[in-house]
Formats: sequence, structure tokens, C-alpha cells
Amino acid sequence: MSKGRVEAFSDGVFAIAITLLVLTIGQPQRFDDLAAELVRQWPGYAAYMVTFAVIGIMWFNHHVIFGHLARVDAPFLYLNLLLLMTVAFLPYPTGILGEALRHGEGARVAAVAYSIVMTLNAFAWAALWLYASGRRRLLHDSFPEEQRGITTVLFVVGSMVYIVGIGIALINAYACLAFHGALAAYYAVDPISRGLRRERR
Amino acid sequence: MSKGRVEAFSDGVFAIAITLLVLTIGQPQRFDDLAAELVRQWPGYAAYMVTFAVIGIMWFNHHVIFGHLARVDAPFLYLNLLLLMTVAFLPYPTGILGEALRHGEGARVAAVAYSIVMTLNAFAWAALWLYASGRRRLLHDSFPEEQRGITTVLFVVGSMVYIVGIGIALINAYACLAFHGALAAYYAVDPISRGLRRERR
Amino acid sequence: MSKGRVEAFSDGVFAIAITLLVLTIGQPQRFDDLAAELVRQWPGYAAYMVTFAVIGIMWFNHHVIFGHLARVDAPFLYLNLLLLMTVAFLPYPTGILGEALRHGEGARVAAVAYSIVMTLNAFAWAALWLYASGRRRLLHDSFPEEQRGITTVLFVVGSMVYIVGIGIALINAYACLAFHGALAAYYAVDPISRGLRRERR
Amino acid sequence: MSKGRVEAFSDGVFAIAITLLVLTIGQPQRFDDLAAELVRQWPGYAAYMVTFAVIGIMWFNHHVIFGHLARVDAPFLYLNLLLLMTVAFLPYPTGILGEALRHGEGARVAAVAYSIVMTLNAFAWAALWLYASGRRRLLHDSFPEEQRGITTVLFVVGSMVYIVGIGIALINAYACLAFHGALAAYYAVDPISRGLRRERR
Repeated sequence: MSKGRVEAFSDGVFAIAITLLVLTIGQPQRFDDLAAELVRQWPGYAAYMVTFAVIGIMWFNHHVIFGHLARVDAPFLYLNLLLLMTVAFLPYPTGILGEALRHGEGARVAAVAYSIVMTLNAFAWAALWLYASGRRRLLHDSFPEEQRGITTVLFVVGSMVYIVGIGIALINAYACLAFHGALAAYYAVDPISRGLRRERR
Repeated sequence: MSKGRVEAFSDGVFAIAITLLVLTIGQPQRFDDLAAELVRQWPGYAAYMVTFAVIGIMWFNHHVIFGHLARVDAPFLYLNLLLLMTVAFLPYPTGILGEALRHGEGARVAAVAYSIVMTLNAFAWAALWLYASGRRRLLHDSFPEEQRGITTVLFVVGSMVYIVGIGIALINAYACLAFHGALAAYYAVDPISRGLRRERR
Repeated sequence: MSKGRVEAFSDGVFAIAITLLVLTIGQPQRFDDLAAELVRQWPGYAAYMVTFAVIGIMWFNHHVIFGHLARVDAPFLYLNLLLLMTVAFLPYPTGILGEALRHGEGARVAAVAYSIVMTLNAFAWAALWLYASGRRRLLHDSFPEEQRGITTVLFVVGSMVYIVGIGIALINAYACLAFHGALAAYYAVDPISRGLRRERR
Repeated sequence: MSKGRVEAFSDGVFAIAITLLVLTIGQPQRFDDLAAELVRQWPGYAAYMVTFAVIGIMWFNHHVIFGHLARVDAPFLYLNLLLLMTVAFLPYPTGILGEALRHGEGARVAAVAYSIVMTLNAFAWAALWLYASGRRRLLHDSFPEEQRGITTVLFVVGSMVYIVGIGIALINAYACLAFHGALAAYYAVDPISRGLRRERR
């Protein structure tokens, strides 16, 4: 199984999951006061935007990491499948979070569920990296050894940060959503991927 | 991140969004007078056709623009993601517009919502172009300087035209849908893309 | 716009439409006698299978035709988009036909609707071929002139045959579904594509 | 029709089917006790995970088999389409199994339906292999003759094992789901694909 094929399949799952998100936004129940209905729906739009950004930036970083691999093997493939399982699952908690916020009921529970899925996703990322980079198993020779340790620390710390998200969800669902939006923004410009991108040049 | 990969991912999102549109058409509620039900559904078919044409022509012009880029960078990637976010969102207002027209209630509100999403999409296109072409940041050397200014003007004017669509929506929902159909037809043959296509040869 | 890109986008729409079909099969309403519910659902499975075969074979023949083209141009692209619009729409009448047959109401109306969409699709195919082959506009030099006329006749006759399907639908919905299954089988082995495939070698 | 195109189309269907699975998980009906609702939903998550693993591993083995083919022909293409038909159908019984287990009604019937679809899928795999390998019709010269017989036996025996799954479903739905999870794990590391992968190197 070539690296290119695994990337193409992963790209497909990322693209489909990101585009399916729109189906999770609640439909208006009545049309006689549609303006108010659509405005009340705003948490669904916010959840859509945050998760869209999350998946889009993950897709980006997925390529950054694959760019440093010399090859893939069967265990890596299954870990990648596990990662994709958590990505493809994201529309489910996203829809529930949007709906719970709109109903004004169950919002914190929904935010906890959302954060748990994001945490499982972060663990899957860390597992993928630990496997690929451990003893430089799948890394390109061009990947500098000093970068490897830092990246591993940042991945493990990153996973811990997602657990904090679960705590925030217990306090306030909107804060939790904002937290995940901020994390996505962080991963768009963070030291791991910036370091990795720089090295790749 | 190579240009080719960003194009392939974008193509995926365009293809999925355009194909998901069919899921937004309302289902018949009763089967004892199905012919009448299906005829009453016609605004849903019209909304499907207009948005299908809009997304298809956008996909085309996305390639035309990418054909003039020498490379992509991280900010461009995030602007492209923002553009895709508005494209992938289109099935939502399309479905609501079709349903509102069928119910005969809330049609103008739905048309306003549809036009707002189209306007946000036009802004995302303009932002993408302004970033890529500003100081010829990402443009190919082969792209002629005199074409750059005209294209920018047309992109900015284009965004303004979409705001007119919001105004039309406030008056009549059907007129608004026809307006967006006409805009799609315009972009299929317009001076921007014709100019850009000519240059690329 | 290269031929390869148009093919890749079209492939994406075919693959998504064929896979979305499963979402149109009616869900069981009650679980206390699920076996009977699932058996009653059989027209939905039949409609799924027929339309799956139809789209799959269309995808195949799409490649056969593209294999004979030397290039694509803008009008061809829009005709191809029109074709994809009818393909991506197929899940809608498929779902309604399955549901109408299950409810035992509106089946002939649903079959007429299904046949109309199939006829529009056949017209889009014919238009695509007439444009591409007229005056050998986009054809490869290797495509033999004597094959061109025969293929055109078969495409036009083919479109007429779909109109017969509308007539059959008015008489019996099951016969109509069987008719479309038989047409798909025909197109899997028919003289047009066999001739075209032979020539391409 | 080149082998690469058939693989790309098949990859698309695998990627879409695996990502659509999430839409089959039941939505919470009420938000006032969302935590309990989401916990009650666990069979839906389990069914999601098992079917996701099944499709992911099938995708992997699809490539392993294609890697041993020298070419494809029309009958192979239609057998592959038949295989994809059973793959794309999987979200349907998966959703029903999850819902039936949650409702506590119809679970064994749903498990039988799930197992029947899996069995049809196994038959489609066996047919694909028997056609491609019979008289070495489509096999690469590099594929060793002694491997061919073993692989055929394992494919046929594999199909039989899926029939056992139908029997297990009649006794207990959870055991049936666990059985299919175990089979997926087996196919991730089984002698067929391990043998095939080894040979390909």
C-alpha cells in the first residue's frame, strides 16, 4: 500500500466529513416566523464553523505529517483508520451540540460529548505520531532528530489540553465551543506544524 | 502543501456539496395524490437547479484561478478553506428556500438567507483573489499585469452585485432565485473568466 | 481545463450519487415486528439496486466516451454539468419510487417521475454526444468516421426508448423498474459502447 | 478502462460509504436528560465502529488484490460494481441494528439482516476473486501459482464463515456484532492478505 493511496483515501474522508457537516444543522420547524427561527439556529452555525475549521486544519496537518514519512506499514494504516474514525464521527456531536444549544437544554452534556470526541481524536493523532516517529520507524532521513523529541512532547501535551476542554464543557457550552475554535486557530499556526513545515522545505 | 493537493481537496468538497444538494429537496408527505405533491415541489427543483449550476460554475472558475497561480502558501490555504466553508454551506439555505416557497410562507426570509450566504461566498472569492493577486503574491509570471487590475475591479464589483440580490430577495423570492440563476449564467461566460481563460492558453 | 480534471470531477459526482442512494431507502417505522417491516421494504431495495446499476454503468460509459475525446471546451463542460445534474438528482425519484411501492399508493406516478428523470438524463447524454461528435468537434483523430454516424443514431434512438419507459410507468410501476433494469443491462453490453470500446484499443 | 480508474472510483465509494455511516446513528429524541439519551445510544456507536472497521479493512484488502492484477476487463468491472453495491448498502443495516439494539426490540432480526448483507458482500468478494484468478485470467505473472489455490480456498471458506454469523444473529445480536468485529480484526491480519501482501513485495 503506497503512501499516496493512503493520503488520497484520507483526503476523501476529510473532504466528505467536512461537507456532510451541513446536514447536521437543525431544520426550521415552522415557516410563519422563519426569520426568528433562523436566528435562533445560530448555535448550529457556530458549531458548523468551528468543526469545519477543525477538520480543515486537521486535513492540512495530516499532509504536513505525511510529508515527513518515508513509507507506511500495516500498523500505521490501522492507526490512520482509527484517526479517520474519530474524524468521520465529528458531525454527530457537532449536530447534537448545535441542537442542544438551540433548545437551551442539555447544552453542557452535549459540549462534554463534543469534547470527548475531540479528545479521542487528539489521542488518535498522538498514537499515529508516536508510532511513526518512535525509533524513527517511518520517518524520512531528512527529518532532524532534535525536531522529533520536541514534536512528540507537543503532541502529548496537546492531547492533555483537550482534556481541559472537557472541564470547560462542564462549566459552559459556549465557552467550550470557543475553546475548540481557539485550539483550531492555534493548530493553524502552532509550533509543531510550523516547525514541521519549515523542516520539510 | 502542493497546489495540486489543495485543488484535489477543493474539487472533492465541490463535488460532494453539489451531489448532497439533492438531499435538501423536500420529501412528499402523502402518496394518495402524489402527482400534485410532486408538482407542488417544483420550487425545490428550481432551487436545486440554480444552486447546482452555481456550484458547478464556481468549480470551473476555481480551476481557472488556480491555473494562474505559481504556488500556494498557508494564508491562501486558510482563505480557500473559508471559501469552501461557504460552498459546503449552500445546501442549507437551498433546502430552506425550496421548502419555504413550497409552503408559501417565509419565502422572502428564506431568499434573504440564501442571498446572504451567496454574498458571503462572493466576499470569500474576492478575499482569495485579493490575497493571491496583491503585489502578484502567488501569481504566475505569465499572468499579464494589465489583466490583474481589471480582474480585481470585476471581483470587487461582483461582490457588490450580490448585495443587490439581498435587496431583490426582500421584494420577491422567485425573482431572487432567477437573479442567482442569471448570475451563474453570467459567470459561465463573463469577462473575468473569459479573460483569465484566454490568458492561460 | 484539462480533460483529466473534468473526468475526475465527474467520477466524484458519480461515486457520491451512487453511494448516497442508500440514504433514500425508507427506515423501518416500528421495531416490534421488524422482520415484516424489512420484507415490506423490498421495493426500496429493488429501486436501490436498479439505480445503482444504472449509475455504475453510466460511469463506465462516461469513461468510454471521454476516451475518444481529444480535448474538452467550455460548452462541452456545461453540457457535462447538465448531465451530472440529472445523475445527481437520481436519488430523489429513486427514494420516492421505493416509498410509493411500499405504501402501495402513488406507485405509477412515482414510476412516471422516475422515468422522466431517466429520460432527461438520456437527452443530456445525447446532447453531450451530439456536441462532441458533430463535425468531429472534440473527437480524437483515431475515432473512425463510419463509427460516428452509427453511434449518433444509437444515441438518438436510445433517448426515444426512454420515452417508452414513461408509457410503461403509466401501466405498471414494477414493470417500469424492470424495464430500467433491463436498459441498464443493455447498456452494459450494447453495441454503442462495445463498438466504442473496440475502437479505442 | 484502466485499472487505476476502477481503483479510484472504488476508493471513492469506500470513502463515502465509511463517512456516511455517521448519519445512521440515531439522534437524541429529547434534550432534558441528554446524558442518559447519549449513553442509551451506545449500541449505535458500537455498530458504527464495527462497520467502520469492516469497510476500512475491506478497502485495504481491495488494494491488495488489485495490486496482483495485470489488467481488468468488462465482466470484472461489473463484479466489482456488484461488490461496491453491497459495500455502499452497509450503512442501511448498520443504522437499523443500532436503532433496534437501542429500542430493545427487533435486535435479532436486525442482526440477521446485518449478517445477510455481510454474507452477500463476502459472496461478492469470492466471485470477484474466482473470476480474476480462475485460469489466472487477470493475475500478474508475478503471482505464484501455489498461492492461488490457497487463496481461493480461504475466500470460499471465508464466505461460509459469514453464514455462521447469520446463525449467531438468531441467538444474540450483541454476539453477532462482536463476531463481525472479530472477523474484521481477522481480515486485518489474516493469512490471505498477509500472504498476498508478502508476495507483492
